[in-house]
Amino acid sequence: MAAAPSFYFDNAATTPMDERVLEAMMPFFTHNFGNPSSTHSHGRNARVELEKARKKIAALLHTSPGEIVFTSGGTEADNMAIWGAISAYGLQQIISSPLEHHAVLHVTEHAANRHNIPRNLLKVSTEGTVNLEQLDQLLQETPNSLVTLMHGNNEIGNLNDLKIISQICQRHGAYLHSDTVQTVGHYPLDLQALSIHAIAGSAHKFHGPKGVGFLYINSNKKLPPLIEGGSQERNRRGGTENIAAIVGMAKALELAQEEQEQHQQYISELKQYFASMILEAIPEVTFNGLSGHPSQSLYTVLNVSFPPNENARGMLLFHLDLKGISASGGSACNSGARLGSHVLQSIGANPERESVRFSFSRFNTREEVDYTISQLKGLYTN
Amino acid sequence: MAAAPSFYFDNAATTPMDERVLEAMMPFFTHNFGNPSSTHSHGRNARVELEKARKKIAALLHTSPGEIVFTSGGTEADNMAIWGAISAYGLQQIISSPLEHHAVLHVTEHAANRHNIPRNLLKVSTEGTVNLEQLDQLLQETPNSLVTLMHGNNEIGNLNDLKIISQICQRHGAYLHSDTVQTVGHYPLDLQALSIHAIAGSAHKFHGPKGVGFLYINSNKKLPPLIEGGSQERNRRGGTENIAAIVGMAKALELAQEEQEQHQQYISELKQYFASMILEAIPEVTFNGLSGHPSQSLYTVLNVSFPPNENARGMLLFHLDLKGISASGGSACNSGARLGSHVLQSIGANPERESVRFSFSRFNTREEVDYTISQLKGLYTN
Repeated sequence: MAAAPSFYFDNAATTPMDERVLEAMMPFFTHNFGNPSSTHSHGRNARVELEKARKKIAALLHTSPGEIVFTSGGTEADNMAIWGAISAYGLQQIISSPLEHHAVLHVTEHAANRHNIPRNLLKVSTEGTVNLEQLDQLLQETPNSLVTLMHGNNEIGNLNDLKIISQICQRHGAYLHSDTVQTVGHYPLDLQALSIHAIAGSAHKFHGPKGVGFLYINSNKKLPPLIEGGSQERNRRGGTENIAAIVGMAKALELAQEEQEQHQQYISELKQYFASMILEAIPEVTFNGLSGHPSQSLYTVLNVSFPPNENARGMLLFHLDLKGISASGGSACNSGARLGSHVLQSIGANPERESVRFSFSRFNTREEVDYTISQLKGLYTN
Repeated sequence: MAAAPSFYFDNAATTPMDERVLEAMMPFFTHNFGNPSSTHSHGRNARVELEKARKKIAALLHTSPGEIVFTSGGTEADNMAIWGAISAYGLQQIISSPLEHHAVLHVTEHAANRHNIPRNLLKVSTEGTVNLEQLDQLLQETPNSLVTLMHGNNEIGNLNDLKIISQICQRHGAYLHSDTVQTVGHYPLDLQALSIHAIAGSAHKFHGPKGVGFLYINSNKKLPPLIEGGSQERNRRGGTENIAAIVGMAKALELAQEEQEQHQQYISELKQYFASMILEAIPEVTFNGLSGHPSQSLYTVLNVSFPPNENARGMLLFHLDLKGISASGGSACNSGARLGSHVLQSIGANPERESVRFSFSRFNTREEVDYTISQLKGLYTN
């Protein structure tokens, strides 16, 4: 009996770890087990590798090691950046967008409440484009603001132009944070060339381990800790350093950057192949946001909007799962917190249509795409 | 040429991971890589193991799975418990002790400032015993308080009697949190038998992985998130669950509890052996806090106070390190943040004497103790 297929198209949620990353982590699970903050040889052996990892990540992002703070992931990094900026600088306004990840949306809402300042969410088009004229206008009125806008949207793939956004912020002297969780490791990021104060990265989005991420914080910016205890991370983040995971993250980022061009080409082509095949199979599909545009969206994300259909209604992901295909959801429907997508709602997606996000990695193949399309076609033409 | 010795006596800082723990983690670094919050098969395969781990930990602590929240470590758990309790309940006073870990000391200081409430640190004796009559009195004046007192002290090993403390708190209706990072896995903890609202655990203190811990939170108590984003951990802690590390922590705790009696006996005897041998070799040594008392201190910690000596002055840890012995520091001296110990200062330890904390695990041997004593004797008798 042939094994049931098990195809993974949910790489924006998490990616399988590269085996070379695991290899890099292993010494820290065995003999190199010291606490990097201990001053004896066991500690120093770990500390050396911790600082090598920091240097490596800093170099890959064109910044300096002192500007990299290790965290337990992207969510913690976003939380720390936002709370830190507002409390350190007494900012008078938060500007963000309704398309942000909950790690930003929830925190900005609470931070605005606690500090009793307005939070303005920029208008977005039906394609998910953020209104930057409004950003400029809001900053003109209140320059002393925190602007937090993501680089690549995790659901509809839209890419924000960080260069333009940072220029607008710089012109007004605003504080700029960006949730770059979907782009770190997938796109070249040159922090020296951008006037940006904080970005967040998460290792498991680029074939590194879960439970680790980093915050880049510009050296001119103060960063009060979110988690405090020992003097780790130059007093910016307490808690024993997760050395195995940190070394794994550095290795994963190194591999991702070294092999970026070839992966980008391979995955972009696979996504385009998926897009053209699904259009051929079910001509009524459309693509949410800009995810159908090759250059204006993440090359890893295709968010497909399916025509209303009795077979699929509310069950499309379930049907795919039964066929061994893992993808993720997103109707614009509000009922059922697990499925309702605030992003699709914000761009006014039709709640009668079923949306599925397919997100790709270098481990996906054309054969997997072919199988998936044929299953979808079966559902929609029966 | 014989290999240089490399003996590790710093198990209160971190412990080597048990190889059975690593074995339990491996599937999550390879094929079982899904995001536990995804609803498809890859996600469910991870979710099942996540909830098994939660159930296992809950059962070992005699509590229910809904009361276990996974965190990135003990420091995060302490931070979350303290901020959460004060903001959810509008508490009017914080009571703690000067002997707490910085994860509690720093947070309580900032929380008291932000909420504009007093923080009272209980008086401690020169042996490090916390004044519980004062606790009772302070609670009589302001019952609506947060009490946070650790179970086992990481530097001097003193054990607080959680049963008595919890009875005092219960009598007054106070909120009780305890930093149990040094005792989880080393002592039986029956949370059903104790009236305690929150405790913190850290896997790498009991031969589990770094970068993961848990907060036990009584089901009657609200817990606002410290890190917010997705709806993970029932909306109490955002961020993709660190499934490999969580499964490793559950395995480590299971092993620790199963083998607790034999390890406790072995390590207690080793500590007593160390204590008697060092007294024989250098009769002027004393033991800081209660660490010399077999039943009133952690069986893993011996904090040795050495007589003033020109050879060792400020250099004792360095000399030990040169001999391949890893232990950790702690003079009562204030100069040099890396060495000054707030715990030794708080109990009025003599700053002329050098203090070294030796902390033991089941992987230490008598031969290692013998070697260490002979090196110390050499230093003090030359």
